[in-house]
Amino acid sequence: MADKKKSAKAQLIDLRGRDVITTQEFSVAELEAILALALEMKKNRYSERHAKLMLRQTFTMLFYNPSLRTRQSFEAAATELGGHAQFLEPKAMRLKSVSGKKDSAGESIHDAAKVIARYSTGMGIRILENSVDKYGDGNWLLREYAKFADIPVLNMADDIYHPCQGLADNMGMRLNVPQGESTRGKTLLQTWASGKLARSYCSVHESLLINSRLGMNIRLAFPKGYELPDTRVLDAVRENCKRAGTKFEMINDPLAGYEGSDYVYSRNWFGPDFYQIGKDAEIARASDRKYKDWICDERKMKIAGPNAKFIHPMPVDEEHEVTPEVNRGPRSIIMDIAECRLHVQKALMAMTICGVKMQGGRIIWPKK
Amino acid sequence: MADKKKSAKAQLIDLRGRDVITTQEFSVAELEAILALALEMKKNRYSERHAKLMLRQTFTMLFYNPSLRTRQSFEAAATELGGHAQFLEPKAMRLKSVSGKKDSAGESIHDAAKVIARYSTGMGIRILENSVDKYGDGNWLLREYAKFADIPVLNMADDIYHPCQGLADNMGMRLNVPQGESTRGKTLLQTWASGKLARSYCSVHESLLINSRLGMNIRLAFPKGYELPDTRVLDAVRENCKRAGTKFEMINDPLAGYEGSDYVYSRNWFGPDFYQIGKDAEIARASDRKYKDWICDERKMKIAGPNAKFIHPMPVDEEHEVTPEVNRGPRSIIMDIAECRLHVQKALMAMTICGVKMQGGRIIWPKK
Amino acid sequence: MADKKKSAKAQLIDLRGRDVITTQEFSVAELEAILALALEMKKNRYSERHAKLMLRQTFTMLFYNPSLRTRQSFEAAATELGGHAQFLEPKAMRLKSVSGKKDSAGESIHDAAKVIARYSTGMGIRILENSVDKYGDGNWLLREYAKFADIPVLNMADDIYHPCQGLADNMGMRLNVPQGESTRGKTLLQTWASGKLARSYCSVHESLLINSRLGMNIRLAFPKGYELPDTRVLDAVRENCKRAGTKFEMINDPLAGYEGSDYVYSRNWFGPDFYQIGKDAEIARASDRKYKDWICDERKMKIAGPNAKFIHPMPVDEEHEVTPEVNRGPRSIIMDIAECRLHVQKALMAMTICGVKMQGGRIIWPKK
Repeated sequence: MADKKKSAKAQLIDLRGRDVITTQEFSVAELEAILALALEMKKNRYSERHAKLMLRQTFTMLFYNPSLRTRQSFEAAATELGGHAQFLEPKAMRLKSVSGKKDSAGESIHDAAKVIARYSTGMGIRILENSVDKYGDGNWLLREYAKFADIPVLNMADDIYHPCQGLADNMGMRLNVPQGESTRGKTLLQTWASGKLARSYCSVHESLLINSRLGMNIRLAFPKGYELPDTRVLDAVRENCKRAGTKFEMINDPLAGYEGSDYVYSRNWFGPDFYQIGKDAEIARASDRKYKDWICDERKMKIAGPNAKFIHPMPVDEEHEVTPEVNRGPRSIIMDIAECRLHVQKALMAMTICGVKMQGGRIIWPKK
Repeated sequence: MADKKKSAKAQLIDLRGRDVITTQEFSVAELEAILALALEMKKNRYSERHAKLMLRQTFTMLFYNPSLRTRQSFEAAATELGGHAQFLEPKAMRLKSVSGKKDSAGESIHDAAKVIARYSTGMGIRILENSVDKYGDGNWLLREYAKFADIPVLNMADDIYHPCQGLADNMGMRLNVPQGESTRGKTLLQTWASGKLARSYCSVHESLLINSRLGMNIRLAFPKGYELPDTRVLDAVRENCKRAGTKFEMINDPLAGYEGSDYVYSRNWFGPDFYQIGKDAEIARASDRKYKDWICDERKMKIAGPNAKFIHPMPVDEEHEVTPEVNRGPRSIIMDIAECRLHVQKALMAMTICGVKMQGGRIIWPKK
Repeated sequence: MADKKKSAKAQLIDLRGRDVITTQEFSVAELEAILALALEMKKNRYSERHAKLMLRQTFTMLFYNPSLRTRQSFEAAATELGGHAQFLEPKAMRLKSVSGKKDSAGESIHDAAKVIARYSTGMGIRILENSVDKYGDGNWLLREYAKFADIPVLNMADDIYHPCQGLADNMGMRLNVPQGESTRGKTLLQTWASGKLARSYCSVHESLLINSRLGMNIRLAFPKGYELPDTRVLDAVRENCKRAGTKFEMINDPLAGYEGSDYVYSRNWFGPDFYQIGKDAEIARASDRKYKDWICDERKMKIAGPNAKFIHPMPVDEEHEVTPEVNRGPRSIIMDIAECRLHVQKALMAMTICGVKMQGGRIIWPKK
């Protein structure tokens, strides 16, 4: 996982056949190549050139958990690349349970993955905490599919990672940086928020991972009791900042992180004991009045600064995570980020499934 | 809502960006333009020219209520225009409840609408009485989406209106008018029927609205207790007839309306107290023997006349709304009307989403 | 149903408009033509020529029962032919119950079939034993649709037949025959297996029917109590073998059928009293220790011979029907067979819907 340095700029980036589990498993040069291609995808949306890449090919989407944004953006991505995304819900499939207990009836992941690869040229999987027994089992399932499928497996959000969201977050911030500036060296406040949705860690993890890789200072704010429990992720973020020469801070105050932050990402996540206490108890706790200051509002955004932007992976829980004034106001770049989901996913599919390569910012389209 | 007169025939009809909530919000010239384009869509189905209009674009369908005809026809319409329709069921989406109570968790319509507009170039919504608390809330929701979405919103049936069905009804009748004649001046019998499906008002409303706009005499027949409660709709129908110089009659007899009617539209609808008494009580009441004469049969159709046709938006509740003899016999034009759903929807999408314009019956295709 | 003989090789095979209910209703020459076209579909997958066949046309899939393989392969088939497959679940449709009781509300099969034919150029239906009251009702429903639909109806598995699986089984074996040899004259062991999935007869029936038609010796093995109850199917298989000059044997031993078999198809099916005792009782019975030898394992496969192959229509119930060692090992050709589902379905759609003809192994593409 050693990052390629700037000297390697003319390096050929070829991701054909690669699985996409987390951005942390890609080099900085690879991430930059994906983002450069995504920008091209945005500029020339609906171009004939893109439309030939997956012409009449099938992309299989397995949704263990439902989703609006992810389904919409992946299905549109396949359509715009000339292909077709199939929407499958494993509950309609006779699959062995996720835990893979030997005694249960149904098809093995081995067989399911191999047969999908006969019909499709790529597949995406979404599986969150409420479809598994314990933290990490969703990611384990994804890696099982990736082990057996002879086609690229793209993570459409699991219980640890959400690489497409992370790439979209970074791309959306780049699109909204003051003219002539870059997100490198800017500061991202990643703050916990109260709320009623008991949210997974994956978007938060991935934001911390990719934005620290790509040169941003990271401020992670949360109240006592809402520590992020996955120390491997936190260690990686710390190491990413060290390599990039940026700062990583942890803050236990709802206001202290705002001053000087360029981007504020205010989002609920559940506590480390979520898998024991369950969703209802978590929601009751996170909605408690004692957390009422853990909301992003205009007053705090003013402290952040005149150009500070609000970001969020959506869906937004207004009145808890952020006020409507901020969420729907000029500081909010959430729609740009949502749109970037489409572009980064098209870029990922183009590179891993269709063989588009990048070299020094130049796109190398596949022959024919 | 002033109707354009015949002198305005060479008027340019440009509907790009328009929402389609009810036909009543379109001028007569606009409705005629849509129907003329729909006829072209029918004549040259699968033409290359149509296929470029939505090439690889996404049309998002939100189904709060399931449907066969509507889904099939909209999905086929998008396919035939070169695009792709995504089938989404809001129950799989984390949306705030329809009533929009502030306290509920989930995404706002504001956010849902705006993000759909980033992935799609048009959207359709279907929401009927059983997904809302009171009459009109479905239409309210649709208008909320339309307010925030930066793309055309098409009504795929709400609790008041069903513009695509209304357009298809009129087009289907036109296709089945005696040679050299027109539906203008013909008489439509819109009659209540007994039955077990407790049907919404939307198809009936829209039939009354568009057919009165487009020059037909209207006979509205129903037993006491089954008045259409929306007086704004009835007032509009009355006004439409007045402007068109045609007759509007209300009849409380199951037979009296037949004589001299050119088209018979026999369909159940629920009583004005449906939202209070609920579906089961409504079905029990409407199936009562005292309503057994409220069925369209061959004997009555003979009274209507040798050329009288049976129409219905489907699905048909045979043995209650109409006998199989009529429904499946030579007087029935329900399949033509069902097919017209496809053509009018393609025309609406082509004009509102893709920028096809009409002028004096001539089609102006968008550049490139 | 008289088989065309070899002398008729240059016969023109034209299946346009034909329904596909079971392979038994096609002549041997027709089956050979379908398989020859399927091979071309495999060799030139994603070819432009195929893509013009269903260009922007809709194929409607009605799934009374869910399925992974069938949905994936039909949806991909439509995509690769340039069209689009709509996935519909009748539970979301307001249809009369399958039994067609006069009193029930909802749409008739007559109407549903006729309207689907207005939107689509072909349709597929899947309906298994658990959606009907008694054996044969699923097939009856399919034939009802076929009677009324003005487009080809393809059987995506009913409670008696599964023609696409049968064709794929035969094609997959052909692809895995020793160089220079043919499946004609080879021996297929069709053996019952223990298990927890209480499986339908359709795949087994169709395998017996098509492989006996196309010249294979058939060994049918099952324990007492697991006789196949449909004597018409068994009579047809016996007659097929007689005409083809091959052997048909019934065996009541889990091992005796292996020696000399070229292909082993080990799969559970439910007992003749399944419709009375229900799924749970059937699963309990079939999982009993007394059936523990009814599994295909490497030891038995060695007895079959060094080149013997394992086949199965998937999903495989490992540890009950077959050991993972065999299922995932070099003898297993289940993935090839699964892939052949796609190719035979494309061939069937191309011939019945799109008018591709075959003559003496030569493909006659439709004009334009």
